[in-house]
Amino acid sequence: MTETTGYSGSGLVHVKNPHLDSLEEDVLYHLALGTKTHNLPAMFGDIKFVCVGGSPARMRAFAQLMQKELGLAGDGEELADICAGTDRYAMYRAGPVLSISHGMGIPSISIMLHELIKLLHHARCRDVTIIRMGTSGGLGVEAGSVVITDVAVDSFFRPRFEQVVLDDVVVRSTELDKHLAEELLACSKQMADFPTLLGHTMCTSDFYEGQGRLDGALCSFSSEKKLEYLRRAYEAGVRNIEMESTAFAALCGLCGLRAAVVCVTLLDRLEGDQIRAPQEVLREYQRRPQRLIAAFIRQRLAGSLPAGTPPCPGS
Amino acid sequence: MTETTGYSGSGLVHVKNPHLDSLEEDVLYHLALGTKTHNLPAMFGDIKFVCVGGSPARMRAFAQLMQKELGLAGDGEELADICAGTDRYAMYRAGPVLSISHGMGIPSISIMLHELIKLLHHARCRDVTIIRMGTSGGLGVEAGSVVITDVAVDSFFRPRFEQVVLDDVVVRSTELDKHLAEELLACSKQMADFPTLLGHTMCTSDFYEGQGRLDGALCSFSSEKKLEYLRRAYEAGVRNIEMESTAFAALCGLCGLRAAVVCVTLLDRLEGDQIRAPQEVLREYQRRPQRLIAAFIRQRLAGSLPAGTPPCPGS
Repeated sequence: MTETTGYSGSGLVHVKNPHLDSLEEDVLYHLALGTKTHNLPAMFGDIKFVCVGGSPARMRAFAQLMQKELGLAGDGEELADICAGTDRYAMYRAGPVLSISHGMGIPSISIMLHELIKLLHHARCRDVTIIRMGTSGGLGVEAGSVVITDVAVDSFFRPRFEQVVLDDVVVRSTELDKHLAEELLACSKQMADFPTLLGHTMCTSDFYEGQGRLDGALCSFSSEKKLEYLRRAYEAGVRNIEMESTAFAALCGLCGLRAAVVCVTLLDRLEGDQIRAPQEVLREYQRRPQRLIAAFIRQRLAGSLPAGTPPCPGS
Repeated sequence: MTETTGYSGSGLVHVKNPHLDSLEEDVLYHLALGTKTHNLPAMFGDIKFVCVGGSPARMRAFAQLMQKELGLAGDGEELADICAGTDRYAMYRAGPVLSISHGMGIPSISIMLHELIKLLHHARCRDVTIIRMGTSGGLGVEAGSVVITDVAVDSFFRPRFEQVVLDDVVVRSTELDKHLAEELLACSKQMADFPTLLGHTMCTSDFYEGQGRLDGALCSFSSEKKLEYLRRAYEAGVRNIEMESTAFAALCGLCGLRAAVVCVTLLDRLEGDQIRAPQEVLREYQRRPQRLIAAFIRQRLAGSLPAGTPPCPGS
């Protein structure tokens, strides 16, 4: 069984679940929110951008950056975690931008996305753009490069995500929004201090053996076998490796959310396995996707301007 | 290719990676620790028990409980996160007990375990017992029951874990330590206020579609189909469902760690999908595995006493 993406003209988020209507109350357990305990349309109805990333601290920093970039009141220090009732995820908002952490790996981002998509549905949000910002290992690109994903692929370089539903395996498309990726790339042209490129992103379920690292607790392959695999990935168009993009693309696509993945590379995996750059360098790398996405959101909010005229802010 | 477990008589943790010896420095990136920046034998050499669980706050609470139960100095409020340099995981210690969070899902626990196992290896720890304590959905058992896993199984009720290594799929055993499970069960007999049982634990990569929930953003199956699947799981011996046990059993087994999984059930999935118990009830449920494991550790530290004579503390 193959499922395809679900973009449509209404601008609404689609939940594809006939059972939801008969729920008297919907408890979004891992977000510590619910339809009876919270007025979700009032809290979230005007959200237009959702940015997600692994680390809670990074997503707080991004909300603070957006607050500043959008000229909102406050210095960002007062930003409160909307999911304070749980420590599974953290959520912040700055104007029409929601910033949420998703932890590491497909299962962790999937739980968050199911509940986030229901939240956007209950809140009757329209025309939402969702962007995953993350860190990744690069393939044949300079450390610190930002990769905008054109296609998310699995460990076998296939543009697909296999979801177990009960005990069936369902294959889903990992298509992302091409126009959104192009728009982000155009915006990056005006950021002179780091390279940004379009490329395939490989999504694995393991950081060590699954990404060909020689430095895990277990390793059964040689350095040659590792490099042969990574070179094949490079030849298939893969430019970075992370652990969430296929599930993110599949779920967002099915629910009609225009989605993009923007990750910075912390190292070039053709040159090594360990992340050894100094903390301050890594911190600056991690701000790059944030700066690009902040510039994109400012540009979107300023309306559709003729290409080339407005320099992206933050560049 | 099938791999089996690696228990042996030396008591040391086995890393099965010939490349590690040639690393000049080992940076445990997601723990913010390393062999050059930290004296791992001095920090961790005397660790005998490692307890892991999803939530950072719960693992801090467990360390505080252990501090009290072991009669250590301090009120627990001063316990510092040993992984303070990152927000990926949180780690606390109380005497010979290390308490670490692992987030949700197999990829997240795998990253932590690779780095934890290397940490125990670098620290030259001996005779370490590792226990995952968690929350789960129950199957045909009263909410609040504690399930000690005899066998961890996948979505198809098979006692196996499939690990992608480069682009090969390797099948691993999910065997856990039978004596340890029995020892925990014996200890539970003296805790009168909640039921504890041995049973199979099913490990899925998704909380919604993968566990047959009708309340996700997507659901393509009927209530009947869901119940038919959950009943088949029950008949196969499954008593609870969570998202980490197969990978935990496989990795710990291969590295010679005696491992157990102890999870409380937050609801009976044959009766519903949503976790609706009041917060104070859920909090008390979550303390049950902690109390059982604390009692077990105290008993172990008190030496091997004749069965039946010493009541488990905390009961």
